[in-house]
Amino acid sequence: MAESTNMRLRLPLLCIILEVILIILFGALVEYNDDTHAKLWNANKSHSATRDDYENEFYYRYPSFQDVHVMIFVGFGFLMTFLQRYGFSSVGFNFLIAAFSLQWATLMQGFFHGMHHGKIHVGVTSMINADFCTGSVLISFGAVLGKTSPVQLLVMAIFEVTLFAVNEFILLSMLGANDAGGSMTIHTFGAYFGLMVTRVLYRPNLDKSKHRNSSVYHSDLFAMIGTIYLWMFWPSFNSAITNYGDPQHRTALNTYYSLAACTLATFAFSALVNPEGKLDMVHIQNAALAGGVAVGTAGEMMLTPFGSMIVGFLAGTISVLGYKYLTPVLESKLKIQDTCGIHNLHGMPGVLGAVVGAVTSALASPGVYGDGLQRVFADAETGKWNPQSRGGFQAISLAVTLGMALFGGLVTGFILKLPIYGAPPDTHCFEDGLYWEVPGEEEGHELNEVATPNEMEKLNS
Amino acid sequence: MAESTNMRLRLPLLCIILEVILIILFGALVEYNDDTHAKLWNANKSHSATRDDYENEFYYRYPSFQDVHVMIFVGFGFLMTFLQRYGFSSVGFNFLIAAFSLQWATLMQGFFHGMHHGKIHVGVTSMINADFCTGSVLISFGAVLGKTSPVQLLVMAIFEVTLFAVNEFILLSMLGANDAGGSMTIHTFGAYFGLMVTRVLYRPNLDKSKHRNSSVYHSDLFAMIGTIYLWMFWPSFNSAITNYGDPQHRTALNTYYSLAACTLATFAFSALVNPEGKLDMVHIQNAALAGGVAVGTAGEMMLTPFGSMIVGFLAGTISVLGYKYLTPVLESKLKIQDTCGIHNLHGMPGVLGAVVGAVTSALASPGVYGDGLQRVFADAETGKWNPQSRGGFQAISLAVTLGMALFGGLVTGFILKLPIYGAPPDTHCFEDGLYWEVPGEEEGHELNEVATPNEMEKLNS
Amino acid sequence: MAESTNMRLRLPLLCIILEVILIILFGALVEYNDDTHAKLWNANKSHSATRDDYENEFYYRYPSFQDVHVMIFVGFGFLMTFLQRYGFSSVGFNFLIAAFSLQWATLMQGFFHGMHHGKIHVGVTSMINADFCTGSVLISFGAVLGKTSPVQLLVMAIFEVTLFAVNEFILLSMLGANDAGGSMTIHTFGAYFGLMVTRVLYRPNLDKSKHRNSSVYHSDLFAMIGTIYLWMFWPSFNSAITNYGDPQHRTALNTYYSLAACTLATFAFSALVNPEGKLDMVHIQNAALAGGVAVGTAGEMMLTPFGSMIVGFLAGTISVLGYKYLTPVLESKLKIQDTCGIHNLHGMPGVLGAVVGAVTSALASPGVYGDGLQRVFADAETGKWNPQSRGGFQAISLAVTLGMALFGGLVTGFILKLPIYGAPPDTHCFEDGLYWEVPGEEEGHELNEVATPNEMEKLNS
Repeated sequence: MAESTNMRLRLPLLCIILEVILIILFGALVEYNDDTHAKLWNANKSHSATRDDYENEFYYRYPSFQDVHVMIFVGFGFLMTFLQRYGFSSVGFNFLIAAFSLQWATLMQGFFHGMHHGKIHVGVTSMINADFCTGSVLISFGAVLGKTSPVQLLVMAIFEVTLFAVNEFILLSMLGANDAGGSMTIHTFGAYFGLMVTRVLYRPNLDKSKHRNSSVYHSDLFAMIGTIYLWMFWPSFNSAITNYGDPQHRTALNTYYSLAACTLATFAFSALVNPEGKLDMVHIQNAALAGGVAVGTAGEMMLTPFGSMIVGFLAGTISVLGYKYLTPVLESKLKIQDTCGIHNLHGMPGVLGAVVGAVTSALASPGVYGDGLQRVFADAETGKWNPQSRGGFQAISLAVTLGMALFGGLVTGFILKLPIYGAPPDTHCFEDGLYWEVPGEEEGHELNEVATPNEMEKLNS
Repeated sequence: MAESTNMRLRLPLLCIILEVILIILFGALVEYNDDTHAKLWNANKSHSATRDDYENEFYYRYPSFQDVHVMIFVGFGFLMTFLQRYGFSSVGFNFLIAAFSLQWATLMQGFFHGMHHGKIHVGVTSMINADFCTGSVLISFGAVLGKTSPVQLLVMAIFEVTLFAVNEFILLSMLGANDAGGSMTIHTFGAYFGLMVTRVLYRPNLDKSKHRNSSVYHSDLFAMIGTIYLWMFWPSFNSAITNYGDPQHRTALNTYYSLAACTLATFAFSALVNPEGKLDMVHIQNAALAGGVAVGTAGEMMLTPFGSMIVGFLAGTISVLGYKYLTPVLESKLKIQDTCGIHNLHGMPGVLGAVVGAVTSALASPGVYGDGLQRVFADAETGKWNPQSRGGFQAISLAVTLGMALFGGLVTGFILKLPIYGAPPDTHCFEDGLYWEVPGEEEGHELNEVATPNEMEKLNS
Repeated sequence: MAESTNMRLRLPLLCIILEVILIILFGALVEYNDDTHAKLWNANKSHSATRDDYENEFYYRYPSFQDVHVMIFVGFGFLMTFLQRYGFSSVGFNFLIAAFSLQWATLMQGFFHGMHHGKIHVGVTSMINADFCTGSVLISFGAVLGKTSPVQLLVMAIFEVTLFAVNEFILLSMLGANDAGGSMTIHTFGAYFGLMVTRVLYRPNLDKSKHRNSSVYHSDLFAMIGTIYLWMFWPSFNSAITNYGDPQHRTALNTYYSLAACTLATFAFSALVNPEGKLDMVHIQNAALAGGVAVGTAGEMMLTPFGSMIVGFLAGTISVLGYKYLTPVLESKLKIQDTCGIHNLHGMPGVLGAVVGAVTSALASPGVYGDGLQRVFADAETGKWNPQSRGGFQAISLAVTLGMALFGGLVTGFILKLPIYGAPPDTHCFEDGLYWEVPGEEEGHELNEVATPNEMEKLNS
């Protein structure tokens, strides 16, 4: 007898308990930072009697924040609507777990690396960081898409956000790693965490739902909305929390070129791997974005435009090839059922990005960067600058991230396996109707009913 | 015999006359302000020989303006596409009346509270304010959606914009109220105005069109585009015209937290009120936004993040409960046919926002705000600061707004009842075909025609 | 025997060769500019020991860039999804040729008017300019939509981008023309280039595909996403590369009013030209945007708000009338098959914009502009200010643009006529299935399969 998928008590109870806990912890721990506090904004004068308005971090970060916000809610949400009967869940659960994760991330990130006298300070930078952490959860969501209940997703988010903050703390604060666009902290972490979760949740009989595990014409167009928004705003994503001035500007520029080159690679290899030379929407929707992932670490460095293009081209290539040749093997041999192919979009390109970042760090020199060196590499300021060890720490960061993600995914996977969350049965995966009121009639029927041409003519006469 | 719905003369005549009047009045009354005028930009020097570029208000306001603009045209427009056969009208009429209202609002708002030596000065701030006023009209549009001709909607806009400007003048200029995000001026006003209009336009036989008054699968996904854009950019909406610096930054932050908490409440109560625990798209599309409405007044104040979350959680809760339990009663007992449920999204949350604003104002003190007090409360600058009376004025403002909206909606409703506008008959409400050329064939037929696999194979060989 | 449309070798080969060439040329020629280079950012001090962060052009241009970027990829891409079976190609090929064009444009524009000691300097301004040039190619794409292979489109882009850069060089650098929003360089050029290409590619038997050359209900809604984004962000488009301060601010304002007036004209004339007074989606989707095109040159000048509204109203009017009366004649008499009607949206409004720009330039005076004259007209700085000759040069610029576009389109058209690109046969135009893997089943079939109400009930109990 299948477990009930009725959410009537489980989902409300979990949401309400979580929000109450969040509110209590925010009440106890969270405060406005200097740039959002009415009293402190001018109290901590920087260099003049009163601070000028343009000095508020809002004016440097908020446009980037909004672009990132669009990527999280529209980009990820609509990218996953490609399934024919899972659009409500894709956009809706994306919305739910993102709204939860950004609150929980504010606490966890603040707790691990943002405490000021026992308080967590918030402002636009914490908003961007919380959205970044949320992005990681949404990447993992892509691996289990269609096979999990909203309760499972929220539980996954609790653990993943927490571990994300720990990993981020180790990388950025302990190892001093550079990872402004999150090739490691966001993409590699989210991908391998999600892949491990979906491995543990392996469903041998998933082919009972395989007729629903595909797209229809219009669902692919909805998914393209997600793709295009992610693609367009990725320069803002990678540059959102770099230092002001040339690093932010350069990161956006590098990402722009990487993505453009990646897109050409994606179209090229999508046609090449198809016997009839036809393009595959799955590739265009996903692989064209790999160029943004792959410059997530090195984007702020002096990667040069043509370096960015080479990285983007490689990322698009391995991503398409991954969709075509690796994903089927992962499923058949390793029992990893990766609905959205996150391994191809976030996993491999994330690792590529980490490696590119390590190499570019190791090659950095004051001769190339001038006084900009310390705007990119924090420890250059301390005078202990050593590019080779910097490159080494970047490589160690990748290893730590992979370890944390795989271990965290393993534990979280087993927690999600408990038969208490109302997960969908194998026969009803990829189906909105389990958790949503879905409008009954199909449109075709309506069209014939609404009005005959004759009636219309009479009305308009 | 039903009134003709033919728009051939009525709509062009009205549009052209209105635009000619607008052009004449703009020619007579409207001038560039100091920040948009080639000559005045440097003539009125602020504190140095030439003003620096970054001092132009464009750089502080324009990104927010564009976010607001997206909310008005994409957010409102697509939110209303949920009806199965009213997508053209939802987006199209939204487009038309918004394009008219923003021009008319520039004149009315300028006339009532923006005259400089007999001229109305325009720049990015007037653009935001005009968009705000337009938002109010679009809220009212939600109540009458599917039951009005475009001519009726334009006539409604003429009156509503005018009254909006009067009410705004009373609140902001006479009562000195705070309402940066428009809980009162925009949401409460627009909602109760629209509800009164739809009450006067009550159609006892509307159930003749009820088979069209519902969604289909893809129309709900289009509506989610509207929802998500409104949700994402609401922080920009509430902060768009606050003072620079900490108030703008804080407002965006408070709104962000309020919306996140609201979303969890929405999912919780949507599942809870459904016998099978299924989520309802109507709730997700609408109630999740109530958190933005409810911090429209207090968002710029020191509401604190956890205060914002409490307000957002309450707003989401009452909004879902309103959709479930109050809307049917309003229709059956009070004869208010509220197509989009604006009472639940804008009405009650707007009133909640006004009350929260009054309370937060009454609790404000120099101890908490420091010198930021006068950046939030204009009369704190004059030294006559009295938080209790401030709270009182806020409460009076709510009462004035409700009175103006209900009275204005009543009068406008009766004007719209005249049988001269080509309103749809009861049998053809919620139907694009009355006012639009709708493509004839349904897609399914086409799919079989376009090309057989054999043909394709031959072509690609 | 029809030419094979198989893209398996042609498309990958072309994409890879082009990207390799791009990477090599970028490696040899492209460098970070002062605002994106780590070393140069502070090395070239402007007026103090270190430059302040807000002085980086990133903070003045990047929000506008992102708006323009959305117009290019979402705006143009979705605007063309109106065809019932060409959505994948519209968004997808738009994506491909835009990603290529922006890289190629960076080189061509840099080569013709941006070399510094033999190197092309890049930053956010070059990104905007590259997107602008790309827009021109996408306009031409609209004329040949549905009738070309992706290989043809890439070849067209190679030539069009190159010629665009030459024409832009002649106008801006040699004739000193003003054209910040590209009425001439982008819209007029792109439109007449594309019209000439489609003339040369004339297909006498295109009516074999005419049942596919129309919209369906949902495809029109997808197209409205494109329309609305273009409409909303056009103020950013026209102002993106004007001088800082009042010119940028004023341009956005003028464009906003022009578009609003244009929208009312569009609705008015769309209803007027229809025998039943019904609105036509083709007009709303396209003609409502003509107001942005028509102030592309004069938008930065002291056109005044009401002047902008008059121009916008005219543009909307001629655009609707063009769709109704001119397009059929162009096809039947001049054999110009213009799928999207770019002549009505970009051609005639572009010429109107050029004329308005010439007249407004000729009327400019220091009395009206004060010291702002030189922020709009570059040669006012040199003291040789002569408004009449300025107006004359603007008029010459239009003539040059028309000549370049028609000649370039003619040559390019003949190159594209070679039977080597896998163009679609007359019987299979406007059909995604030729170049894309299209999901096989239609949705209706699925809906009945997925789950019966009984099954659902059991699961939720």
